[in-house]
Amino acid sequence: MSMDRTAAFVGLGAMGMGMARSLLAGGFSVTAYDVNAAATASFVEAGGQAASSPAQAAQGRVLLLIVVATAAQAEAVLFGEKGAAPALAAGATVALHSTVGPEAMQAIGTRLGALGLRLLDAPISGGAAKAALGELTIMASGEAAAFAAADDAFEAMAERVYRLGEGIGVASTVKMVNQLLAGVHIAAAAEAMALGVRAGADPQVLYDVIGNAAGSSWMFQNRVPHMLDGDYTPLSAVEIFVKDLGIVLDEGRQQRFPLPIAAAAHQQFLAAAAAGFGREDDSAVVKVYEQLAGIDVSRKGFKPPD
Amino acid sequence: MSMDRTAAFVGLGAMGMGMARSLLAGGFSVTAYDVNAAATASFVEAGGQAASSPAQAAQGRVLLLIVVATAAQAEAVLFGEKGAAPALAAGATVALHSTVGPEAMQAIGTRLGALGLRLLDAPISGGAAKAALGELTIMASGEAAAFAAADDAFEAMAERVYRLGEGIGVASTVKMVNQLLAGVHIAAAAEAMALGVRAGADPQVLYDVIGNAAGSSWMFQNRVPHMLDGDYTPLSAVEIFVKDLGIVLDEGRQQRFPLPIAAAAHQQFLAAAAAGFGREDDSAVVKVYEQLAGIDVSRKGFKPPD
Repeated sequence: MSMDRTAAFVGLGAMGMGMARSLLAGGFSVTAYDVNAAATASFVEAGGQAASSPAQAAQGRVLLLIVVATAAQAEAVLFGEKGAAPALAAGATVALHSTVGPEAMQAIGTRLGALGLRLLDAPISGGAAKAALGELTIMASGEAAAFAAADDAFEAMAERVYRLGEGIGVASTVKMVNQLLAGVHIAAAAEAMALGVRAGADPQVLYDVIGNAAGSSWMFQNRVPHMLDGDYTPLSAVEIFVKDLGIVLDEGRQQRFPLPIAAAAHQQFLAAAAAGFGREDDSAVVKVYEQLAGIDVSRKGFKPPD
Repeated sequence: MSMDRTAAFVGLGAMGMGMARSLLAGGFSVTAYDVNAAATASFVEAGGQAASSPAQAAQGRVLLLIVVATAAQAEAVLFGEKGAAPALAAGATVALHSTVGPEAMQAIGTRLGALGLRLLDAPISGGAAKAALGELTIMASGEAAAFAAADDAFEAMAERVYRLGEGIGVASTVKMVNQLLAGVHIAAAAEAMALGVRAGADPQVLYDVIGNAAGSSWMFQNRVPHMLDGDYTPLSAVEIFVKDLGIVLDEGRQQRFPLPIAAAAHQQFLAAAAAGFGREDDSAVVKVYEQLAGIDVSRKGFKPPD
């Protein structure tokens, strides 16, 4: 267990802000950097400290947490101009919470290792609301010493931490498989609700009955209410699944493994992005079906039969 | 509420046998017919009565329950040689529990109506184990008089009855949408587990972590254990989803509505049937991925990395 309750933090987005605030609530002293100065300012108001670069945030720290969107962003944070890696204390631990492919995670681990730094492959699940409550799920793999360095921080941010062994890439593989299912389930929920409405069913009835039946999924229960409300305020955006199912399909190519269902779902998220809904909530994938057929899956769109 | 606790029953398969026995347990006198004489004999041992044709089972009854696989079978039971419809009492009610498309359900309702009989559009969900316990879910639509005739029988067979209004086809539409999701979720679970194993993950870890995360579904939780055990004893067969996703896709054509994700999942069930797994458990759709890539998603197939 680390006695040093200080951490560097990069990436104060929908997930990262909640996580960084959970660290503050857990008694950590946190120095954070984000490309968006407004996010950093808001974090300072919450009691955190601001840095003007990843290097400044990381200066002399033994623990750095990164919550950016892509592998390219994580590499820039660590190894780019004013990057964090050279600034960290010797033997420091980096917890990378982004969803990246297992090979990208391994490549980052190798580069950090060459600098005498440790990586925790540590993707997260649970959404922004749980992040804000310190109730995330963290799936993590890495060396025991890296876990020891991050344990207290993980306890402040997460309700559940899966320790998946030493291998860098193991946790990212599990997360990738989770994202395959999550993305397919959202797109399938959209397809199913839209077919039902096209065939004349009441969308509220579809939700009530199927949410309690064998066709239910975590995503069906969580995302269909957005469709019923017609409220596509982005809790998690369409573009996230354009990215995450993209990682899944890249891995399929790498492994020479066909993924016909994930590929079909990815096309629907791409269609949603093509139609201009990329920054809306991921449940806006239903708009692809709505626009094609001139239907409305929301509660207020339903007209009972005469 | 009907005072007449007698029923005719046709179709003593995996679901029907449990339902017919639940009627016996609920104090009903039940006369049953099945094409398989062994099923009828087993039902007689359980305290039921056997009939040698649908007509004999239905003779003078005010309630007939049908649990066959397809619309064509239901039509043969009702209107074929020694069919049940002409033998029923005047004004009798037929509860059709099969998964058939809404148009097929409506066509049967029209033919029954012309004979002065009532139809309940009454598909079921829950699986053979719940059928045996009298704990099914029934989604039903039809006239109030038809519900009144079937209420006591439904109470004996079901934990939950959704009353979805008067329209014949409404309940079948909800069931069809449920089956779209159920089928996609099984095939996606197979695809996801197979990708994870191909990428080196421990299948038990995938199940434990994702079953508690946003990628979970009712089917993931229920069917992945069959894959982990490598046990494909058919609780519900691959052929059921060849049929049910076929109904979904037929409806999509009828409604001029594209269903790319359901279509991709249907192809995987067809591939499983083509490879000879049609009568195995529907989770055997994972064998399509296993055989393609020479992998084994079962617990005993996993070799931890060195």
